[in-house]
Amino acid sequence: MRRQRIVTFVQSVVVAGASAAGVLGPAGNVMAQALKDVQTPDTPLVLKAQGSFFVGGEKVEQTQGELGDLGPGGHITVNQMYVRYMVPQGGDGNVPVVMVHGATLTGKSWETTPDGRMGWDEYFVRKGHPVYVPDQVGRGRSGFNQAIFNNARAGSAPANTLPRWIRFSDEVVWPNFRFGSKPGAPFADSQFPVTAVDELSKQGVPDVSFGGVPAPNPTFKALSDLAGQVNGAVLMGHSQSGSFPLAAALLNPAVSKGLVLVEPGGCPAYTDEQIKTLATVPILVVFGDHRDTPTGLPTFPTWQARFEGCQAFIGRIKSAGGQAEMLAPPERGIRGNSHMIMQDKNHLQIADLILQWIDERVSKPTAPRK
Amino acid sequence: MRRQRIVTFVQSVVVAGASAAGVLGPAGNVMAQALKDVQTPDTPLVLKAQGSFFVGGEKVEQTQGELGDLGPGGHITVNQMYVRYMVPQGGDGNVPVVMVHGATLTGKSWETTPDGRMGWDEYFVRKGHPVYVPDQVGRGRSGFNQAIFNNARAGSAPANTLPRWIRFSDEVVWPNFRFGSKPGAPFADSQFPVTAVDELSKQGVPDVSFGGVPAPNPTFKALSDLAGQVNGAVLMGHSQSGSFPLAAALLNPAVSKGLVLVEPGGCPAYTDEQIKTLATVPILVVFGDHRDTPTGLPTFPTWQARFEGCQAFIGRIKSAGGQAEMLAPPERGIRGNSHMIMQDKNHLQIADLILQWIDERVSKPTAPRK
Repeated sequence: MRRQRIVTFVQSVVVAGASAAGVLGPAGNVMAQALKDVQTPDTPLVLKAQGSFFVGGEKVEQTQGELGDLGPGGHITVNQMYVRYMVPQGGDGNVPVVMVHGATLTGKSWETTPDGRMGWDEYFVRKGHPVYVPDQVGRGRSGFNQAIFNNARAGSAPANTLPRWIRFSDEVVWPNFRFGSKPGAPFADSQFPVTAVDELSKQGVPDVSFGGVPAPNPTFKALSDLAGQVNGAVLMGHSQSGSFPLAAALLNPAVSKGLVLVEPGGCPAYTDEQIKTLATVPILVVFGDHRDTPTGLPTFPTWQARFEGCQAFIGRIKSAGGQAEMLAPPERGIRGNSHMIMQDKNHLQIADLILQWIDERVSKPTAPRK
Repeated sequence: MRRQRIVTFVQSVVVAGASAAGVLGPAGNVMAQALKDVQTPDTPLVLKAQGSFFVGGEKVEQTQGELGDLGPGGHITVNQMYVRYMVPQGGDGNVPVVMVHGATLTGKSWETTPDGRMGWDEYFVRKGHPVYVPDQVGRGRSGFNQAIFNNARAGSAPANTLPRWIRFSDEVVWPNFRFGSKPGAPFADSQFPVTAVDELSKQGVPDVSFGGVPAPNPTFKALSDLAGQVNGAVLMGHSQSGSFPLAAALLNPAVSKGLVLVEPGGCPAYTDEQIKTLATVPILVVFGDHRDTPTGLPTFPTWQARFEGCQAFIGRIKSAGGQAEMLAPPERGIRGNSHMIMQDKNHLQIADLILQWIDERVSKPTAPRK
C-alpha cells in the first residue's frame, strides 16, 4: 500500500475503488443529473457499524412565540452536534478520523462528490479508519436556535438584531474556491470537476455561524468531546472549520491525536502558551493551487495570504518543538487543486498523502491497508 | 424469515441484529450519553454502495444583502432535496424504500434510535432493500431560502412577513408523541425508550415548512422524481410527511410502487379523480396506540381523529377498487406503540410487519431475506 501511494503521488489520479457504472437503477432510465452520475465501487463496503448520534447540546426554556406558536412554551435542546459514523469491519482498532465541513456547507462535503465519485468519508473507511462526519452546530441536522427569528417576526426583537445568514453565490465560488479566475472559465489544469459545479451549488445551505451561534462556537467543545468519546481521533477541518481542530485540541490535547487543516480560512494568532500546547499534537496543513487568484470577495485575504499565515504558524509550532507540516501539492508537482480539494478529480491522491501522514505521524493501522 | 416474522408478531420484541456491546471505543472510557449507548450489530453490514446526492433544486438570483452581505449578488440553488442512500450487496434488484421524516425533524429520525439501537434505515437494508433517506426541502442538509430573513434584518422586508420556525417543546412531545399523558409519566406499556427522551430532543431542528417553503412543497416532486430515478420505490412518510407519498404518487403513480403512511398527520380529502389514481398503488397506513391522548396542542385533532380520517380514506380507496390497509398494532395485541414508532423498543417488530406487507403487496425480494 505504501508503494501504491508513492506511485500515485508522483504519477496520476488514483481511480481504484470506483467504476463508471451506475447500479442504483438499470441503464436506460431517464435520471436527473445527480443520481445518474453516481458511481458504484467495484468491491462492497463492509462495515462493523454505522449510524448517527449527537454530541453536546443544552436545554433552554423558550416561550410559545419563540417556539413558533405551535403550542405552549417549554424546553428544547440547542447547540447539539449531529454526527454520522461508519466503522470498517476490522478497523475499530485504528485511529478514527473526524471530518468537519466549511462555511455554508454541511457534512455532505465529505460524501459522494458533485460528479458522483466516492467521498473521502467512505475512502478513509475503506482504508481502515472509523470515520465521523458532523454537521457544525447551527447547520444541517444539528439545527440552530430559532428563537430570535420568531421574536423578530412577532415584533418583540428588533429585526436589525437578527444574525445574518450567509451563502456564497455560484459566481463567487469560481474564483474563491479557485476553479478558475472567473465563472465558467476553469483553469486549464483545474482538478475540480467543473462540469458538476451545479451539484456543488446544491450543497450550499444558509450559514448563521457569524452571529447566530454562541461564542466560543460550541462545535469546538463538541469536537473535543467526540475525540474523547472515541478514545482519541484525528480531527480534520476544512475552510471555515480549518482551524476548529486547533480550537478543539486546546480544550483537550490528550485526545487530539492529529490535526489536519484542509485549506483553512486561517491559522489563528495564538499565544505562546497555546502554541506550546498545540506543539504536543502532530499538525498537517493542506493547501491547493492557484492561491493568488483574487477571491471575488474584496474584503477577504487571498488564499496565498492565508497559506503564508499558516506557514508562519507552522514555524511557531516547530520552534516550540512540535511537529507541523505543510502539504502543498503544487510543490510536489501536483497542479490544479482547488479549495474543494476533497472533491477534486485527484481527491484520492490527496487523501493518500494525508493517510501517509497519519501512518507516519499519528499511528499505523493495526492491519496493513488494502 | 416469514416464520420468524409470524413468531415475533404474536410474541415479543425482535432484538436480532444488535448486541449491547458498544465498540466505538473500549469499555471504561467516560462517554457522553449518546455515543456510549450506541449498540453494534453482531454481523457486519455489507453494502454494494452508499453515499448521497440531491434531487431537484432551482437557480435563483439574489442580491448581496439576500446572500448575507458576504460578497456581491448572484445565483444560488434553492429547494433541492438531500438524499443519503445505502444499497445492500445483492439487493439492487429489490424494491427501494424511501423514508421521509416528520415536522421539526430530519432524516436522522430513521437512523440510530435515541437509545442507540439500529435504525429502520439499516434494518431495511439488512432485509435486502436499497434505502434512501432524504431531508425535506427546507430542513437539514437540504437547506432553505434565507433571503427574506436577511431582507428583514436589513429593513427591506417587514419582519411580520417572516415565516415562522416551529419546534415542539419537550413537554409537548410527551402527550403529542404519546409517550405518556404528561411529561415524565410514561404509559405503563409505552414502547418508546423514554429514558433516552433527551436524545430525541436533540433530533429537533427548526421547521420553516409552514410558510417558508413554496407551495406545493417541492419535496412532493422531489420524492416522485427520486422514485422515478430508482425505477420505482416504496415511499414511506411519517407524521407531517405521512401524506407526502400520496402527493408524490399523484404526480407519477407508475413509479410509486407502494405507499406507507406512518402515523400520518392526516389523510387528505382528495377528489374522486385523485382517489382513482391512488387506487392504482398499494397503500399501507400505520398507527400506534393511545391515540385518544390529548395532544397538548389544543388546536390540533387527536391522533384518534386522524386515525379515523385515514380509515375513511382507506374506505374510499377500496371503493375505487384499490388496495389500502390499516396496520394498527393494538388491534393485533401489540400495545404501547408511540408516534415515533420507528424508534420504539419494538421497532423491528413493526418493521417486520411493513416488510411483510411489501412482500405481499408490492414485490418479493429476488433472494429470500436472511
